[in-house]
Amino acid sequence: MLLEKEKSFLALIDVQARLLPGVHEHERLVKNCNWLVRLAHLMDVPAIGSEQYPDGLGHTEEGLRELVGEANIHGKTCFSSIDDPGFYQSLKAYDREQVVVCGMESQACVMQSAMRMHEEGLEVFVVADAISARDPFDTEISLRRMEQAGIRLVTREMVGFEWLRRSDASQFKAFSKEFLQ
Amino acid sequence: MLLEKEKSFLALIDVQARLLPGVHEHERLVKNCNWLVRLAHLMDVPAIGSEQYPDGLGHTEEGLRELVGEANIHGKTCFSSIDDPGFYQSLKAYDREQVVVCGMESQACVMQSAMRMHEEGLEVFVVADAISARDPFDTEISLRRMEQAGIRLVTREMVGFEWLRRSDASQFKAFSKEFLQ
Amino acid sequence: MLLEKEKSFLALIDVQARLLPGVHEHERLVKNCNWLVRLAHLMDVPAIGSEQYPDGLGHTEEGLRELVGEANIHGKTCFSSIDDPGFYQSLKAYDREQVVVCGMESQACVMQSAMRMHEEGLEVFVVADAISARDPFDTEISLRRMEQAGIRLVTREMVGFEWLRRSDASQFKAFSKEFLQ
Amino acid sequence: MLLEKEKSFLALIDVQARLLPGVHEHERLVKNCNWLVRLAHLMDVPAIGSEQYPDGLGHTEEGLRELVGEANIHGKTCFSSIDDPGFYQSLKAYDREQVVVCGMESQACVMQSAMRMHEEGLEVFVVADAISARDPFDTEISLRRMEQAGIRLVTREMVGFEWLRRSDASQFKAFSKEFLQ
Repeated sequence: MLLEKEKSFLALIDVQARLLPGVHEHERLVKNCNWLVRLAHLMDVPAIGSEQYPDGLGHTEEGLRELVGEANIHGKTCFSSIDDPGFYQSLKAYDREQVVVCGMESQACVMQSAMRMHEEGLEVFVVADAISARDPFDTEISLRRMEQAGIRLVTREMVGFEWLRRSDASQFKAFSKEFLQ
Repeated sequence: MLLEKEKSFLALIDVQARLLPGVHEHERLVKNCNWLVRLAHLMDVPAIGSEQYPDGLGHTEEGLRELVGEANIHGKTCFSSIDDPGFYQSLKAYDREQVVVCGMESQACVMQSAMRMHEEGLEVFVVADAISARDPFDTEISLRRMEQAGIRLVTREMVGFEWLRRSDASQFKAFSKEFLQ
Repeated sequence: MLLEKEKSFLALIDVQARLLPGVHEHERLVKNCNWLVRLAHLMDVPAIGSEQYPDGLGHTEEGLRELVGEANIHGKTCFSSIDDPGFYQSLKAYDREQVVVCGMESQACVMQSAMRMHEEGLEVFVVADAISARDPFDTEISLRRMEQAGIRLVTREMVGFEWLRRSDASQFKAFSKEFLQ
Repeated sequence: MLLEKEKSFLALIDVQARLLPGVHEHERLVKNCNWLVRLAHLMDVPAIGSEQYPDGLGHTEEGLRELVGEANIHGKTCFSSIDDPGFYQSLKAYDREQVVVCGMESQACVMQSAMRMHEEGLEVFVVADAISARDPFDTEISLRRMEQAGIRLVTREMVGFEWLRRSDASQFKAFSKEFLQ
């Protein structure tokens, strides 16, 4: 099954500035999450975010926070985003069945969010080059665990080409120029 | 399930000369696609090709284009080859149920073609050493995504030995001499 | 499916001091098993252990043995822990359906225990960074074999975050301070 | 599902001396196949072998040939051993449902034999450290293809510990002394 832009939303999980320095390849993580949020905007796909206990751990990385918009980012205390009532209502309001997941950490909030979304009947696609953890081994095993559960692994470019589907789509020129090197 | 030469056709996806320089290990890609098309000829297996937006991006690498034959290569604007009417009719005319897929890029036209062919009921075999992308991580995750969907991973030599099945097949001497080192 | 602390128990398989020197990355193995037993204590999750032929091969590494408690460690002669009557009764007495498995060696007692527990209807979670073997290739293939059989692969941190589920859980402060670097 | 020695037989595929020099890590291949045949003897598990076109390509490596016994090695022209009538009858005569496969080359005769045995209803276990090919990439993709088809991946030591099951089995002392370092 491929992604369809009309059915999709993007979930950015807990990319909080204060936690980034300890995360493996965190600059690549932020860059690729940024790429995905801008792509979602280009394709008219809604993006929502979450933050783990923002009162104590602070907010999402500044650039991402601006792109997603403060009002679309939900503070939470449970590790699984979908088990937060605010996030859940926001998701339900969009009524879309395919979720593209990126963020951190792979073995904690990303995996729990993805697994619980899958259990709730969503079609979950985790972006393998836009998640990370302090220890890359946690990312590796998280990918295998999610894969085994039926969650799909994608890359950021897969998401782009699937949302577009055709090179004569109206957004392709911008995609080709701004998103591919 | 193994490949059978009477049921097979080969699909060469978008190996366009102008795009090759940016592709990871592109010389190996061209060499292995070439190997597969020549093998198809030896085994009387039909080969068809596709090109993404050839008016803008140019044609298939010269050697491959000659081998497959211009008339068998379909220009397209959708990323999935099977969703192009010309490619689809050509495929339907052969009425064969097993497709061997090679070409580029793994995460874009190769994966979308393979997934859509699988959804259309074809038995899809992707040649892991005859696909590539600009970023090898895209190839790695594409292979996992296709594998999870039920698409089979093969190598070029697997294809050869499965189409042959026996060392007393009439084509084995030529295979052994020209295709194995 | 995620782990739930009320349904879980921890099984420490055969981390016997005399065998450790030949085991790949054995210091990491002991450290991560230790981490898991302490986590189980923090979360009120029962932990039981096994030892392969202790009369001949000696006992569990001292620190682990104290943590789990001698009375909870069962000597056995079969490689699969659950096929030992003492271990089995102990497990049945807890009446919990999710088992978190760590220890050694991956390809022998860990894999046989995990496979047989799975056959007995338990939900088995093997901790990929808390098992080992003399040859790391044995660990790699064991993980694939167990994965294929439907056993889940986790990391020690996945176990921690799943047993906790929320950052406002009463044990989270201790977890964050003592178990994460 | 674990191996049971009463239900098992060992299949040694095409380890022919003349072809060995071109095979990746061929000394390890021969050593590990030798280990498995001696283990089969220790455990009273029957072993049968195959040779691809022996009139042209010569016989099995000398040490292995002696261990398995000439009478138990079947010359063939099809790549899949089970499709050779002599091999098939030999296999049927044993009436055992679990087959442990080792030999070469991974992507040709090993994979075709394993896939066809699986299709015939046997429970197939391929020994990942006792198969090889000229190109290790062919072995890697063969393992994934067989795994996807439901064939189990094992290591030589897994086979040993599963056939034994207990450290008080009568053969354990010999196993421990002669087969483990």
